[in-house]
Amino acid sequence: MNDSEPNSNAGLVAALRDALGDDGVLVGDAVTARAGDGSGTVPCAAQAVLRPRTTEQLSAALAACHGASQPVVPQGGLTGLVGGGVAGDLEVAITLERMTDIEEIDPVGRTMTVQAGAALQSIQEAAEAEGLLFPLDLGARGSCTIGGNVATNAGGNRTIRYGMTRDSVLGLEAVLADGTVLSSLNKMVKNNAGYDLKHLFVGSEGTLGIVTRVVLRLERRPRSHNCALLAVPGFTEVTSLLRKLEEELGGSMSAFEVMWREFYELVTGPQARTAPPIPHGDPYYVLVEAFGARQEEDAAQFEEALGDCMEDGLIGDAVLGKSKAERDEIWALRDDVEQLNHLAPIFTFDVSLRIADMEAYVGGIKAALSERWPGSDCVVFGHLGDGNLHVVVGVGDGSPEARSAVEDIVYGRLEPIDGSVSAEHGIGFEKRAHLGRSRTPEEIALMKTLKRTLDPRGILNPGRVFEAEGAPPTGSHADASVRLPA
Amino acid sequence: MNDSEPNSNAGLVAALRDALGDDGVLVGDAVTARAGDGSGTVPCAAQAVLRPRTTEQLSAALAACHGASQPVVPQGGLTGLVGGGVAGDLEVAITLERMTDIEEIDPVGRTMTVQAGAALQSIQEAAEAEGLLFPLDLGARGSCTIGGNVATNAGGNRTIRYGMTRDSVLGLEAVLADGTVLSSLNKMVKNNAGYDLKHLFVGSEGTLGIVTRVVLRLERRPRSHNCALLAVPGFTEVTSLLRKLEEELGGSMSAFEVMWREFYELVTGPQARTAPPIPHGDPYYVLVEAFGARQEEDAAQFEEALGDCMEDGLIGDAVLGKSKAERDEIWALRDDVEQLNHLAPIFTFDVSLRIADMEAYVGGIKAALSERWPGSDCVVFGHLGDGNLHVVVGVGDGSPEARSAVEDIVYGRLEPIDGSVSAEHGIGFEKRAHLGRSRTPEEIALMKTLKRTLDPRGILNPGRVFEAEGAPPTGSHADASVRLPA
Repeated sequence: MNDSEPNSNAGLVAALRDALGDDGVLVGDAVTARAGDGSGTVPCAAQAVLRPRTTEQLSAALAACHGASQPVVPQGGLTGLVGGGVAGDLEVAITLERMTDIEEIDPVGRTMTVQAGAALQSIQEAAEAEGLLFPLDLGARGSCTIGGNVATNAGGNRTIRYGMTRDSVLGLEAVLADGTVLSSLNKMVKNNAGYDLKHLFVGSEGTLGIVTRVVLRLERRPRSHNCALLAVPGFTEVTSLLRKLEEELGGSMSAFEVMWREFYELVTGPQARTAPPIPHGDPYYVLVEAFGARQEEDAAQFEEALGDCMEDGLIGDAVLGKSKAERDEIWALRDDVEQLNHLAPIFTFDVSLRIADMEAYVGGIKAALSERWPGSDCVVFGHLGDGNLHVVVGVGDGSPEARSAVEDIVYGRLEPIDGSVSAEHGIGFEKRAHLGRSRTPEEIALMKTLKRTLDPRGILNPGRVFEAEGAPPTGSHADASVRLPA
Repeated sequence: MNDSEPNSNAGLVAALRDALGDDGVLVGDAVTARAGDGSGTVPCAAQAVLRPRTTEQLSAALAACHGASQPVVPQGGLTGLVGGGVAGDLEVAITLERMTDIEEIDPVGRTMTVQAGAALQSIQEAAEAEGLLFPLDLGARGSCTIGGNVATNAGGNRTIRYGMTRDSVLGLEAVLADGTVLSSLNKMVKNNAGYDLKHLFVGSEGTLGIVTRVVLRLERRPRSHNCALLAVPGFTEVTSLLRKLEEELGGSMSAFEVMWREFYELVTGPQARTAPPIPHGDPYYVLVEAFGARQEEDAAQFEEALGDCMEDGLIGDAVLGKSKAERDEIWALRDDVEQLNHLAPIFTFDVSLRIADMEAYVGGIKAALSERWPGSDCVVFGHLGDGNLHVVVGVGDGSPEARSAVEDIVYGRLEPIDGSVSAEHGIGFEKRAHLGRSRTPEEIALMKTLKRTLDPRGILNPGRVFEAEGAPPTGSHADASVRLPA
């Protein structure tokens, strides 16, 4: 599609320039000057980058691409971890970086209507300015976009209290593959007037439509914050602790993060930013947090609940975050995932399984890894309250063969226990070969049927989630995933 | 399809008997002996009633019906309010009354796997027996089934705290129109492995598949209950009260039900079961409830919050439900909807709109009704915290013409404010003519596209939600809605 190439599609470029204006269609150096993925080290490989200013512009551009069977890749903040937004050299990238408005806040109904290119952090701040809370939160808040959060159904630290992104989406507007604008901007908590179409677009990774606007549900801002770091003597105690705190805190628990000892030792080791607030030596460390309404009473209830747990032998040592600075320090430790790079080369996983299966599962993969690679690292942490574990494996070998062997261990052992190969990161390119480990053939067949129905020419983010069916006329990165950065 | 009729489809009957056994296929008197709708006064009009014992039996039966293009109507407890489960005389009813097992409870992961024919109340009780809570609750709990709850995305009294039925469904199994069994029995809170297909079936009223099994998310059982009835001097005070209580109760609020004065006077009038706990004369009465963890502390917090609201002038009189008996009495008043029959003939509506629009909306429809029918009744109550109002109108005339004129007022005034003609009851037959008032042409077109894709012969609950496209070969009740009971 590059103007200078002999096989360029001059008609399509002209149509896109017509739809988006000259500054809405980047080609050549203007494309390669942009980042191709979240690492910032790879140039964008796309044939062109489209930058619509309005839904109508995007609609016209997609209609043109549909007409030309041109594959397109919607891009948010490029913070995804499964390669879903990385455009190949036969694809056209679409960014909503010029559609970032926060259009409306209804403080009574507690809704916010935003354009999909808005950064998560700008949404959090706009809610805060109204004395409200947008509860979705993740490390990439400054650069990820709400459109990307919706497309991937992002999770994050407070899912246990507020749910995934899906649970905060009341309505949305999306442009379908052929340019049809689907306006489903519902602002109501309850609306049973026909099928709830928004769920087709949440979590489908841009393969069924491109989200352009979102109506978000806001929450009341909590007035009290309590947080503690706890050492726990065994996994049975971890699950009993979870149950007891859920009961005693009465629904105010907003995080229950578990760090297996290897993770805790890494993020509080000599090379890390933080000294260990609790000595090393216990098998599990738990970060528990509660949001409530009254600081004094809630702090007393929180401490009393922890005291009860200590009496019951569920907790060994404990450190309370009494001030914002102390709470931030506890979170900083949990969030210091950069320490994992000391184990490089590493393979990282984001899996979901029943809490009751976790101890045996983690024990099983550690044993299998040690057997094959003596001295290998297996570091586990995650949002245990949601059944979500992050598993980081270092076997001293970053080759595709090693990766595949590790995947067989980490993913393979999920199959008999009906676990999921993706808790919150999505499938993208990276996990598509493993989709069948977590979903039945009938489910995958229905996904493909939906894809064919909504995107009959297969132009929307082809090859992400599952293999593209038939190669589009212009070819597609979908069939060239080996070219993707690892 | 009756065996004795000359135009019977002997081949289909034989195939169904083969799939379901003789006692799995009811015809003739065995059909008319059954209730046709929730009133219990109308016999079932279906050609046959199918009673599968297993998913495999239902799969074989649906495959046979698909082969013969025979329309089918899935039935739960027949407690729906929009005619969605009422079978016409060219249709075959399918009941899951022999699939009522509670198959598994995981107390650690807080999940329950049930067959779709299980009654809501049996699920609530099974959760309670494990010290847990299944939060969905509605008046029909004893007879409605979880399959019906899922198919209609039922709401109820505690949506403000726990969400709609959709929010309690982690996974499901459904049989598609052609008999394909889609097993999507996810038990995890987080699972981003591909499209989240369950949302296609939740709230689509049996038009895309028949739900056979459900994995439900259970909640911790609250240990404290607080409840009060409050008189509120104006609508501005109602919204301020909601906001203040949400903030002060820190997420423990489990109901915020508002009764406009006419409703309150009716359910506490001389003919009603309950004497007025608070004198008549105020414009609004609010039932507020909170679920927490510690009875003493939570009661103190609850009373303090109400005291603050009283000081701020948001509340006039207030009555606390200090014992279970007192709380039940307050709820009994709110739930005594039978008193509405004193206004018969009545038309009842279930609408959703932004809280900020409610006062003007209710004032507008009351004025329009009074102008056209002086002395008419308009009684409003509902789950205000969720934006959901029930509107009951009596104009002394129950004719279809009167109904249509009232609908034009009640639904018509929702259109400019983007309200919904169905908050929690669904569309069924009764509201399908009004779907376009709440959804755009593009949305309805996409719904029909999904219907055609998943059910190409249009056999699944045809004509519900929207008109059937083309008459199936055997004809369908879908095109004979005038035969339905009002």
